[in-house]
Amino acid sequence: MPKKIRLGILGGGGDSLIGILHRVAAHMFDNYDIVGAVFSPNHQESLDFAKEIDIPLNRIYPDFDTLISEELKLPESERIQVCSVQTPNFLHFPMAKKLLDNGFHVICEKPMTTTYEEAKILRDAHKKAGTIFAVTHTYTGYPMVRQMRELVRSGALGKIHKVDARYYQGWINPIIHDAEKRKTVWRLDPTKAGISSCMGDIGVHAFNMIEYTTGLQIKSLLCDFNYLYQDNVMDVDGTVLIRMGDHVKGVIRASQVATGEENGLAIRIYGEKGGLVWEQERPNFLYKLSDTEPLQVYKPGHTYNSDLSLDGTKLPAGHPEGIFDAMGNIYRGVARAIRGAEFDPGEFPTMTDGVRGLNFIEATVASHKSGNTWVTLD
Amino acid sequence: MPKKIRLGILGGGGDSLIGILHRVAAHMFDNYDIVGAVFSPNHQESLDFAKEIDIPLNRIYPDFDTLISEELKLPESERIQVCSVQTPNFLHFPMAKKLLDNGFHVICEKPMTTTYEEAKILRDAHKKAGTIFAVTHTYTGYPMVRQMRELVRSGALGKIHKVDARYYQGWINPIIHDAEKRKTVWRLDPTKAGISSCMGDIGVHAFNMIEYTTGLQIKSLLCDFNYLYQDNVMDVDGTVLIRMGDHVKGVIRASQVATGEENGLAIRIYGEKGGLVWEQERPNFLYKLSDTEPLQVYKPGHTYNSDLSLDGTKLPAGHPEGIFDAMGNIYRGVARAIRGAEFDPGEFPTMTDGVRGLNFIEATVASHKSGNTWVTLD
Amino acid sequence: MPKKIRLGILGGGGDSLIGILHRVAAHMFDNYDIVGAVFSPNHQESLDFAKEIDIPLNRIYPDFDTLISEELKLPESERIQVCSVQTPNFLHFPMAKKLLDNGFHVICEKPMTTTYEEAKILRDAHKKAGTIFAVTHTYTGYPMVRQMRELVRSGALGKIHKVDARYYQGWINPIIHDAEKRKTVWRLDPTKAGISSCMGDIGVHAFNMIEYTTGLQIKSLLCDFNYLYQDNVMDVDGTVLIRMGDHVKGVIRASQVATGEENGLAIRIYGEKGGLVWEQERPNFLYKLSDTEPLQVYKPGHTYNSDLSLDGTKLPAGHPEGIFDAMGNIYRGVARAIRGAEFDPGEFPTMTDGVRGLNFIEATVASHKSGNTWVTLD
Amino acid sequence: MPKKIRLGILGGGGDSLIGILHRVAAHMFDNYDIVGAVFSPNHQESLDFAKEIDIPLNRIYPDFDTLISEELKLPESERIQVCSVQTPNFLHFPMAKKLLDNGFHVICEKPMTTTYEEAKILRDAHKKAGTIFAVTHTYTGYPMVRQMRELVRSGALGKIHKVDARYYQGWINPIIHDAEKRKTVWRLDPTKAGISSCMGDIGVHAFNMIEYTTGLQIKSLLCDFNYLYQDNVMDVDGTVLIRMGDHVKGVIRASQVATGEENGLAIRIYGEKGGLVWEQERPNFLYKLSDTEPLQVYKPGHTYNSDLSLDGTKLPAGHPEGIFDAMGNIYRGVARAIRGAEFDPGEFPTMTDGVRGLNFIEATVASHKSGNTWVTLD
Repeated sequence: MPKKIRLGILGGGGDSLIGILHRVAAHMFDNYDIVGAVFSPNHQESLDFAKEIDIPLNRIYPDFDTLISEELKLPESERIQVCSVQTPNFLHFPMAKKLLDNGFHVICEKPMTTTYEEAKILRDAHKKAGTIFAVTHTYTGYPMVRQMRELVRSGALGKIHKVDARYYQGWINPIIHDAEKRKTVWRLDPTKAGISSCMGDIGVHAFNMIEYTTGLQIKSLLCDFNYLYQDNVMDVDGTVLIRMGDHVKGVIRASQVATGEENGLAIRIYGEKGGLVWEQERPNFLYKLSDTEPLQVYKPGHTYNSDLSLDGTKLPAGHPEGIFDAMGNIYRGVARAIRGAEFDPGEFPTMTDGVRGLNFIEATVASHKSGNTWVTLD
Repeated sequence: MPKKIRLGILGGGGDSLIGILHRVAAHMFDNYDIVGAVFSPNHQESLDFAKEIDIPLNRIYPDFDTLISEELKLPESERIQVCSVQTPNFLHFPMAKKLLDNGFHVICEKPMTTTYEEAKILRDAHKKAGTIFAVTHTYTGYPMVRQMRELVRSGALGKIHKVDARYYQGWINPIIHDAEKRKTVWRLDPTKAGISSCMGDIGVHAFNMIEYTTGLQIKSLLCDFNYLYQDNVMDVDGTVLIRMGDHVKGVIRASQVATGEENGLAIRIYGEKGGLVWEQERPNFLYKLSDTEPLQVYKPGHTYNSDLSLDGTKLPAGHPEGIFDAMGNIYRGVARAIRGAEFDPGEFPTMTDGVRGLNFIEATVASHKSGNTWVTLD
Repeated sequence: MPKKIRLGILGGGGDSLIGILHRVAAHMFDNYDIVGAVFSPNHQESLDFAKEIDIPLNRIYPDFDTLISEELKLPESERIQVCSVQTPNFLHFPMAKKLLDNGFHVICEKPMTTTYEEAKILRDAHKKAGTIFAVTHTYTGYPMVRQMRELVRSGALGKIHKVDARYYQGWINPIIHDAEKRKTVWRLDPTKAGISSCMGDIGVHAFNMIEYTTGLQIKSLLCDFNYLYQDNVMDVDGTVLIRMGDHVKGVIRASQVATGEENGLAIRIYGEKGGLVWEQERPNFLYKLSDTEPLQVYKPGHTYNSDLSLDGTKLPAGHPEGIFDAMGNIYRGVARAIRGAEFDPGEFPTMTDGVRGLNFIEATVASHKSGNTWVTLD
Repeated sequence: MPKKIRLGILGGGGDSLIGILHRVAAHMFDNYDIVGAVFSPNHQESLDFAKEIDIPLNRIYPDFDTLISEELKLPESERIQVCSVQTPNFLHFPMAKKLLDNGFHVICEKPMTTTYEEAKILRDAHKKAGTIFAVTHTYTGYPMVRQMRELVRSGALGKIHKVDARYYQGWINPIIHDAEKRKTVWRLDPTKAGISSCMGDIGVHAFNMIEYTTGLQIKSLLCDFNYLYQDNVMDVDGTVLIRMGDHVKGVIRASQVATGEENGLAIRIYGEKGGLVWEQERPNFLYKLSDTEPLQVYKPGHTYNSDLSLDGTKLPAGHPEGIFDAMGNIYRGVARAIRGAEFDPGEFPTMTDGVRGLNFIEATVASHKSGNTWVTLD
């Protein structure tokens, strides 16, 4: 292994949850060194945080533009190689775009952009740049999600004919029922959070999970949102009928008002020869259903798993790994890609996933607003 | 308790699975005696079966019409009081109608009729008859389903805003992918099985479960079927968007090609203050979700349950009861009603449930065939 | 199938839980008719109960001795064939003995007797009588317990080397911590309940489950009880080290003060080639563990199960059956035996199980009282 | 937060699983910098590994003694502060002892030493040194294990009266049944692995878990091992009866031949007022049982948890954390202790746990070898 990859961080300072997730993941396989950052729009806070986590202060920049310009002055051998974008959603696009335009690799939080239009622009920028670009659909990093993908690819299910994905959370519930709170929380303000709350924040993960595991593309969809209150203009719940071509159909269900649910992402895939069921809150159990055989439960670390899955497990079977480990797997895949080492396309989600995600989000809104008509994805 | 209720059986002879379910249920609380029957269209088979289960042969009739005419000749104190209709679907309507017209109580398997039109005619006949009429949506007899209903009624969830029901089976899967078999199985022949396979057979249970547990009515729906093959004309899979008025929305998912699934009926209800989750294959566990408290798991037989739920449990907590016991509870409720004893409306599904079920089935077909438009239920 | 078997009932009247369990089980496969009974030591209560469940009053006897003498006066073709003994424990022995001595078949609740001495006397009486004798270790009637037995017999685990059974309940907990209550409850009074509470009531089920499923015999044991309070003289909790010969060892854990536990019987068997895990509160799931393959979950009704298991399932996979169904299976096995039909030895527990159970119970007490020494079973 | 703590590593190089567990844990909260190491007895391998994970080579020492002597030459402000001992078991004692004697803090893998005698010597050395000493009973770092401890401390269970811990693995199974393999594997060679295999490696975790969560001490024990084969001299399976004084009893079950089991550590605690159940393979679910209330399932990250538990969770509820996160919590606790910051005694296991662990291991062997007599712990 060559030297550690020089990592820059944008956002993720202070108590940021996403910040600690990315930092732990970056360190997990001894692949990255944080060498530069803008942790916060407030420079002093950025510096304070850098001190707190004890990293050198000399490349803690006052703002993003300075980071770019200063880093470009450094010799390539010292310069940040990859930037991890963990800022609020609306900043993803301008930052990712400028990073690509200046030849950096990018790890970008989702949603990749706030509009499909931006996503396509970013795709063009990426094509020109030729660098590595990853979107952190973290759940694809779980060993058992990787195993799902590989089982489908191996033909274990035969032709897929039905997909059912769910992402139920309850976190907006205590807010939505309070008239005052629901007016003031930024997540329900479209000027701040984009055109969709529920689909933009979580439905898109379910969408990505389907495409990741089945290898199929959703062709068209029909969506119905629930806003719960007349004065609320953002979807907090929705169901999406999907068609994947040739009698392959399914449904995506997402809710932020599924009271008491925590982080209930789950997927069921059914094919001619078998079915697969996985739930994020019990990530180390993958259920394989059959017409004729006992139910099988796959667990990480066993040699009966695919190489892609085994690559995502660090300890022997029975030592539970979790969401940090899933993100760690994604960071490792990116490290391999940056170093030009061999890697499997299943190791991290890419620009394509990001673009399709935005296509999906906008299509759900379009379908709902048009009176629940079918909308075709590109 | 007065004398046992005199029960007549229509269908359910030989190896009939539904037959044994009803017989065990009828005997469960020492409420019923089978005194007459037409177990089979073949009289000899009927007689043979009566011998096999050792019941008197003198009232084993050659056909349904004879049963009616002969029983009417008997004094009321000896006459069959209630008939249990377990015949193929298309016979439910004519039999139930004639039974009602002649003053009998009726326990009818679902679907109650093959068309909504018939269902409404039956409703009128029932109104005139004034006897007891029950439809065997068996799953409502489970103690934990009853507890769901009572928790919702008690306000434990506050206002409901989201419902999600699933009924996934895999049994048609081995048939559907075989071009020969799918052409010849009667369940996929609309002239024999009615206008819907998946919604008619199982989707309607999910529908009934929602209305039973929430006490709300589904107002309108939008449905998309999957036929899997061009030459198949019956739905084997479908998803139904539902609206229950005033920002209450949800989804019903049903499939007979969910490969490897057994009898996967499940329901999730979310309200302002909490959520409830129940699965038919683990019927003795009811999950209550909260924004702020640990997940609670209700189990049968505990005094923290409602009276309606406790009435459905025969043994102390930890002694699993199952589907036979659920049906037994329904039969007991009907016995109470026939005897004029006090009973809770939650003890058995009625004509109203039967009529609404047919309304639902036809609406799903109408919605799908119209290009997935919203269809209003009566 | 010939005529129904003429069943007599001893005990089990009124609200008796065991009574309803036996009655439902007896009716389950249309095999038995209750023709005579002593439901209660109070004749009037017996008659009232017979009226309540609407059975003929003419053979509701004032007491057990009268039942015997009067039944013997009847022609054999009308006489009770089998008696189900559901009385308090201390009556099991005298009743079963007299029944056997007079040529009746017997279904006896457990514990079969209150002492090992009595058990051996009963065994002799049974040998002489040559009739059918069953002990209702009900849990052996579950399809998945039968499947465990058959998997072990088929060699699926190879040589067994480790067994672990647990039976944890919490029902004495609210009593034991109250000095007044624990002095007055009959279950903790050895003059009324026999020499052991916890092992006699539930530990013995765990013991029987081990011998039933593995086909091996426990050779010796070492036991430590917990009485919880100085003034309590009955075991309410205990752990038993067991040896089954040739490096086959294990443990039985039983408790009636496992606070909050319901009816937590569970068993784990490990052999050279695999393991099996089953829990009574989720009786329809049998887990098969392997060094190299995914965990397999067996469920009832599938054709991959053994004949003995399939015989215990009435409905298709996914329709949960429970404790009543398990007892129904035992009654069916007894019916086959009484009729001289073919049956599998795994269909119901016999005199041998009963005798060994008492041997076990007394051995645990002897071991504990001797300062936790090893005690050999016969 | 002051500067990162200067961490030295002993062992854990190459593909070492324990190595990656410790490195990830150390980095998790940005608390530690690896500044020196002896990753391997082979200096070149040590250097290569240091290159591989890209840490400075100047303090990668040829051996442990050199590490000590060279580090002592450095000014205290540069010197390694804490050493993490990840070497084979027999090296734990001499290394830990010398580290303590020279004033270093120590994080030591378990078993802390190979004999109880050594453990007591180490305890004395630690007392003299006054530095921080942690033993990595990793499982105590799980948020739900911490919550167990706090629930017990808060009196939620009342007086404890029963404890049941299990640690079942299957990994030796494929080895033990092969006469050749079981003779040659070092884990079954007492000259290499110490006096106990099963209790020394895993039983001791179950022991520690009991004392950690209940706050009680095991006073005496009686143990029975299973060696499976005559020619095998190391325990591969054992059951331990335990007494914790004043009618508090329980059992520890451990096996390395529980075929198909992965890492099955589980614990059940019962007290006057309630019970708690936790399983390592589903670490984010803690079950609270009650005589009168529905079963409660505690999950990490919710504000209903104790501070100690919440401190162990990095992300919102529903984002599974695992074994790496548990170890990370232990490292964080040690960091706080080293920095003189406030910390809860529940944050990491200490010398006391290590000493008691060895006392336990030797007592189990003594009990078994003496013919299963009771052995008192100090």
